[in-house]
Amino acid sequence: MKSWNTVTIIGVGLIGGSIGLALRNRGLADQVVGIGRSKSSANLIKAKELGAITAIASDIPQGVANADIVIVCTPVNEIAEHVLAAAIAVPTNTLLTDAGSTKASIVSKVEASMLPDEHFVGSHPLAGSEKKGMHFARADLFEGRVVIITPTNRTKAEDAQALTDFWSSLGANVLTMSPEVHDKALAGTSHLPHLIAAALAGITPQDDLPLTAGGWRDVTRIAAGDPNLWTQILLENRANVLKSLTGFEKKVQAFRSAIERGDATLLRALLTEGKQVRDALGD
Amino acid sequence: MKSWNTVTIIGVGLIGGSIGLALRNRGLADQVVGIGRSKSSANLIKAKELGAITAIASDIPQGVANADIVIVCTPVNEIAEHVLAAAIAVPTNTLLTDAGSTKASIVSKVEASMLPDEHFVGSHPLAGSEKKGMHFARADLFEGRVVIITPTNRTKAEDAQALTDFWSSLGANVLTMSPEVHDKALAGTSHLPHLIAAALAGITPQDDLPLTAGGWRDVTRIAAGDPNLWTQILLENRANVLKSLTGFEKKVQAFRSAIERGDATLLRALLTEGKQVRDALGD
Repeated sequence: MKSWNTVTIIGVGLIGGSIGLALRNRGLADQVVGIGRSKSSANLIKAKELGAITAIASDIPQGVANADIVIVCTPVNEIAEHVLAAAIAVPTNTLLTDAGSTKASIVSKVEASMLPDEHFVGSHPLAGSEKKGMHFARADLFEGRVVIITPTNRTKAEDAQALTDFWSSLGANVLTMSPEVHDKALAGTSHLPHLIAAALAGITPQDDLPLTAGGWRDVTRIAAGDPNLWTQILLENRANVLKSLTGFEKKVQAFRSAIERGDATLLRALLTEGKQVRDALGD
Repeated sequence: MKSWNTVTIIGVGLIGGSIGLALRNRGLADQVVGIGRSKSSANLIKAKELGAITAIASDIPQGVANADIVIVCTPVNEIAEHVLAAAIAVPTNTLLTDAGSTKASIVSKVEASMLPDEHFVGSHPLAGSEKKGMHFARADLFEGRVVIITPTNRTKAEDAQALTDFWSSLGANVLTMSPEVHDKALAGTSHLPHLIAAALAGITPQDDLPLTAGGWRDVTRIAAGDPNLWTQILLENRANVLKSLTGFEKKVQAFRSAIERGDATLLRALLTEGKQVRDALGD
């Protein structure tokens, strides 16, 4: 597997920290430079202690000056700006990517300002959780998990290949699709589930919490995620989220109608449809 | 703790089997008689092998003839009939209960036909899961879990106490409320979550399953539950489920409106509200 002299991670939380740990544990990078909001951020200090990064940089130009690859793991609404700030300061041929949960808006903002000789390809590791911060980072976070990369017609084939190799070297299964296809699918498989979990949690009186069991607990688990991050994600992917939500509302209406009419046959069919999809995934 | 000479379990699946295992592991019952649809049912044979029951009875009258307590763990739409069949065949003073996920309809059906000297109090152990059958039964299923018992104004105080002691002896925390209060609360904490999970799973194209991660997986987990059981539960508690569903739909509408208008402040407030409820519960 290809190893790197210097990898720079902008935003060292759950995802960025796990990339650092995985690179170092697998002996894939000599230097891992971390950049945060300030040199004394708790995440950066913890990342250095745990060996996820080997150095802390004070700003993007300094931190990416020797980077062979830069991964931007900041909140989705800041990613494009950070990628572009890195792009003007990196050596020729440095590969740039990100780890944002939405892709079309980020990729189009970056490509609109990028020079022809720069090397950016978007990524989205499907390995987030309601937990955040370096505290929950793990060297094995990407093992067996899917990472989606989103090249466009402006992407050089060798950059897409290098990025595939990068995530594969951390143990991930890499899928390739356009930013638009990514955002449409993830609206349903990730963004809508978050909205639903938060809505269910939001209508539950706290007094009823002792009367919840495994079901409520599972359905609402991700509602514990960071409201700031998820506000940005839902707004960045607004059109697709609303389309997925419409499909969900229609299905809920079908349930309502079956229950109102006492139609056991229809209700059983709706429940069976859900079970078949869920069973196809496994635990 | 009180121990029993003979406990009879009608319906030996996840819940009934776990009751048997817990009683036997804790040395609380000399005899545990299991009754199923047929003497040769796979669940009964497995329950006997694993020591969850000590004997298999061929029918309710025979199986309850020496019972000190009978627990009916069949699907909700069959429970009342099974309780009443047991009630006419048990010795004087035998305590009868059930483990159904809905209570008002079951309790009112049983009480409408019960004689004054019979001893029935409803129960609902909040310990189910999308798994079913004796295969998933565990002696510790009730440890630290909530069991709700639902006495009415017809219930004798000593019967409610004996039932509390029974579930406590299996390690459960017993809460007492009316069948109506139970059904109203559980519509929101258990039945609606199931509907939501099934609806989300149902709208997800199977081709998108590789693009799901922990969030979708958690939200939809219970959709794998038995459609027949859940059809009955949702219909038995129809009015409360529809009321909870209306509350959920209103909250979802608030999310929709915030996203449509790009109102980050409102969206963040909605997500924060959900997070606060979820955080109050913990993992």
